[in-house]
Amino acid sequence: MGPEGVLSRPEDLMLYEYDGLSALEMPEAVVFPTSTEQVVRMARLAAARKMAITPRGAGTGLSGGSVVTQGGIVISFARMKKILEIDLENQRARVQPGVVNTDLTLAVADDGYYYAPDPSSQKACTIGGNVAENSGGPHTLAYGVTTNHVLGLEVVLPDGEVIRTGGKCWDLPGYDLTGLMVGSEGTLGIVTEVTVRLLRTPEAVETMLAVYDRVMDATRTVAAITAQGITPAALEMMDGFTLRAVEQATHAGYPMDSAAVLLIEVEGLREAVKEQAEQIEAICGGNRVRSVRRAKTTGERALLWKGRKNAFGALGRISPNYYVQDGVIPRTKLPEMLEFIEQVGKKYDLQIGNIFHAGDGNLHPLLMFDARDRDQSQRVVKAAQEIMKRCAELGGSITGEHGVGMEKNELMPLIFSEDDLELQRQIKALMNPTGSFNPGKVLPTSKMCGEIRVQVSAGG
Amino acid sequence: MGPEGVLSRPEDLMLYEYDGLSALEMPEAVVFPTSTEQVVRMARLAAARKMAITPRGAGTGLSGGSVVTQGGIVISFARMKKILEIDLENQRARVQPGVVNTDLTLAVADDGYYYAPDPSSQKACTIGGNVAENSGGPHTLAYGVTTNHVLGLEVVLPDGEVIRTGGKCWDLPGYDLTGLMVGSEGTLGIVTEVTVRLLRTPEAVETMLAVYDRVMDATRTVAAITAQGITPAALEMMDGFTLRAVEQATHAGYPMDSAAVLLIEVEGLREAVKEQAEQIEAICGGNRVRSVRRAKTTGERALLWKGRKNAFGALGRISPNYYVQDGVIPRTKLPEMLEFIEQVGKKYDLQIGNIFHAGDGNLHPLLMFDARDRDQSQRVVKAAQEIMKRCAELGGSITGEHGVGMEKNELMPLIFSEDDLELQRQIKALMNPTGSFNPGKVLPTSKMCGEIRVQVSAGG
Repeated sequence: MGPEGVLSRPEDLMLYEYDGLSALEMPEAVVFPTSTEQVVRMARLAAARKMAITPRGAGTGLSGGSVVTQGGIVISFARMKKILEIDLENQRARVQPGVVNTDLTLAVADDGYYYAPDPSSQKACTIGGNVAENSGGPHTLAYGVTTNHVLGLEVVLPDGEVIRTGGKCWDLPGYDLTGLMVGSEGTLGIVTEVTVRLLRTPEAVETMLAVYDRVMDATRTVAAITAQGITPAALEMMDGFTLRAVEQATHAGYPMDSAAVLLIEVEGLREAVKEQAEQIEAICGGNRVRSVRRAKTTGERALLWKGRKNAFGALGRISPNYYVQDGVIPRTKLPEMLEFIEQVGKKYDLQIGNIFHAGDGNLHPLLMFDARDRDQSQRVVKAAQEIMKRCAELGGSITGEHGVGMEKNELMPLIFSEDDLELQRQIKALMNPTGSFNPGKVLPTSKMCGEIRVQVSAGG
Repeated sequence: MGPEGVLSRPEDLMLYEYDGLSALEMPEAVVFPTSTEQVVRMARLAAARKMAITPRGAGTGLSGGSVVTQGGIVISFARMKKILEIDLENQRARVQPGVVNTDLTLAVADDGYYYAPDPSSQKACTIGGNVAENSGGPHTLAYGVTTNHVLGLEVVLPDGEVIRTGGKCWDLPGYDLTGLMVGSEGTLGIVTEVTVRLLRTPEAVETMLAVYDRVMDATRTVAAITAQGITPAALEMMDGFTLRAVEQATHAGYPMDSAAVLLIEVEGLREAVKEQAEQIEAICGGNRVRSVRRAKTTGERALLWKGRKNAFGALGRISPNYYVQDGVIPRTKLPEMLEFIEQVGKKYDLQIGNIFHAGDGNLHPLLMFDARDRDQSQRVVKAAQEIMKRCAELGGSITGEHGVGMEKNELMPLIFSEDDLELQRQIKALMNPTGSFNPGKVLPTSKMCGEIRVQVSAGG
């Protein structure tokens, strides 16, 4: 790879201790391959020397998927960021894993297409990282998560073998290895090429901000919208604490004195969008909304979304540290869950903000703390565990879109039986027999059942 | 299971030699479990006695997935047909595998919901069978195949262990075993419970019949519709030979003297449907359509669909036998592929009809023959092989929705490398180590690369 393709000085490697969640330890080297062949050679070298390999996109992940747990080599995909093929007629694109999420959309936008999965970090995060974590985003409600948009992969296995799964078709015969790889967080193989679906840009979009004086009215509106058979493209909720922090940072026009806002987007054909927007306004009106404002310009729409997408950053301005959680519940349990989170906040004496992808029941409680306060840091982790446990009890899940990583692998027994986990271990043992690819991620490593393992002191 | 739960008389067992494709050999017994526990006991018994187990839904499959290849026991799900839970608020249902596809829709239709995957055999085929084969249908274009609607499974493994994969959420952490199981045709485990998504019945539907004097104009219309960013709910094509057979059988109103028809359906909000239907009519008009007729009543719509859905049956009236093929190509290759199929027909002196799920490039060439004519029967298989090979060469696949079964496992090397297949074999060896679950299906069993193994003489 040449000297420009490898980092090994400690001051350079330090940067790779971190991702969006956590810092752990320094890798021994970071390499920047430019081709699948170079990834193959790294895999073979690492296998021969019994070193760990951890793949890394942009390092924006929130569950520690790209930080190293046992030293070894980090493979950064920063130089594999070519869009290899755009096939508009069949609505497909083939990209290298280092392509930044939003760059793919930019490449096809003028022709009227886009790539649907849109994590809040989409201006930085890579499609390879999205595939590893099976990332979601605000538009998951209408379009599903990353796995619903990935049709084919090229994958390097730990022994250096290269396999191709899927292709341009909706589905291929045989076992669905594409689906198996998506969300496996680099523990089964390293993705070196991705074939994705492209969608047509909708003819019209309406983005609405509904403002509430009581949180419960906002959650009731969510239930009422979906009960009427309307599937908005996005249906986001922020509570008063969070929206105030966001407003101070981005001046998106969220009213500082409100208890909650819903950010609702509908899209499609012009006539249908108009009709749906009117229906939604009526539903909001029936649920004690204070006001509903429609974005009048593209700029106004962008500002509303900027507020939402930069919300985590905005909280960093008002709290020394925060811990973002990621849970899922059936959306009918939203009001019950909100109440529970409030109780947990009281029990542990913590300020907890709430951002929900409300339409699909994906919660992001935001736990504020000061990492210098050891007791508070410990309380944050306990509170997060209680919230995750409750998600599981309500028939939900311990992560909606941020992944398991090294944060939640010890929580896996909350939703999987020992038999279920054993089968997952066997699949990992089959594909990654020495455990050299991204060790310490996804599956439980110990008997610390139900414990979040992350050191939140590093987060935020 | 008691005497009423087991068949073992030869005259009863004979019926289970058959499915929609083929007949091979008689099982030693057919059992009708009523619970997961009984399936577990059968799996344990079969493991102890080293007997094969072949699961069976309604036996409507078209790739031999439910016929036995090595004797043993057939597990019929005819008595496990309970809808276990309907959760309309979260748009989920939990069913036993023997539930007939259309019965689930009927159970929720009055509340305004439906189950989207709709194979043509939906009035008979079971959801368990659909899961095994990852079935599609005319509405795959807009809604995807079965795997896009299955969120969770209960599965009995060959050693009798029961695992649960997924659940009610969009996706769960860890490896996607639900996706791995769907389409694995009973070779990795036997599904005993399925959790599916329910969709809201659209407010409005328009069904159109576009009639053409030249096949090429119909294929051009397909390309033009999708190029304009319109995704109809269904976009089906039948050539003149096929539509004449259908018309004679069902009197759906397909003009007997036309070269091709498109059956086009759009659905959604009333206003949007109206606008899309007008756009589509305009596109048809720009591609030399002879006429476009919109179904005016529910009855008329049902009749148009009856023609399409019973097309295979209608061909049985005009030919002693026929062999339905199932291939996929990128939809932009439709005109090229149609020409190729015509050439193949000439080369082998065979009448070939064409029914396409045109919007998603899923072809069903229908090869007419008389099974009593040995030479003709052999030509049919050779012609089908050439067509499948061409699909693979054009970047497509050897099955779109009918599955691999024992028909196409020797064709798998057309689209998978030896390394890809080896990994699939290893996954099978992990989950089904003795190979006792549905032996002889999906993966190649010999070195007969590129050969269709089915004895078409039994088909039709």
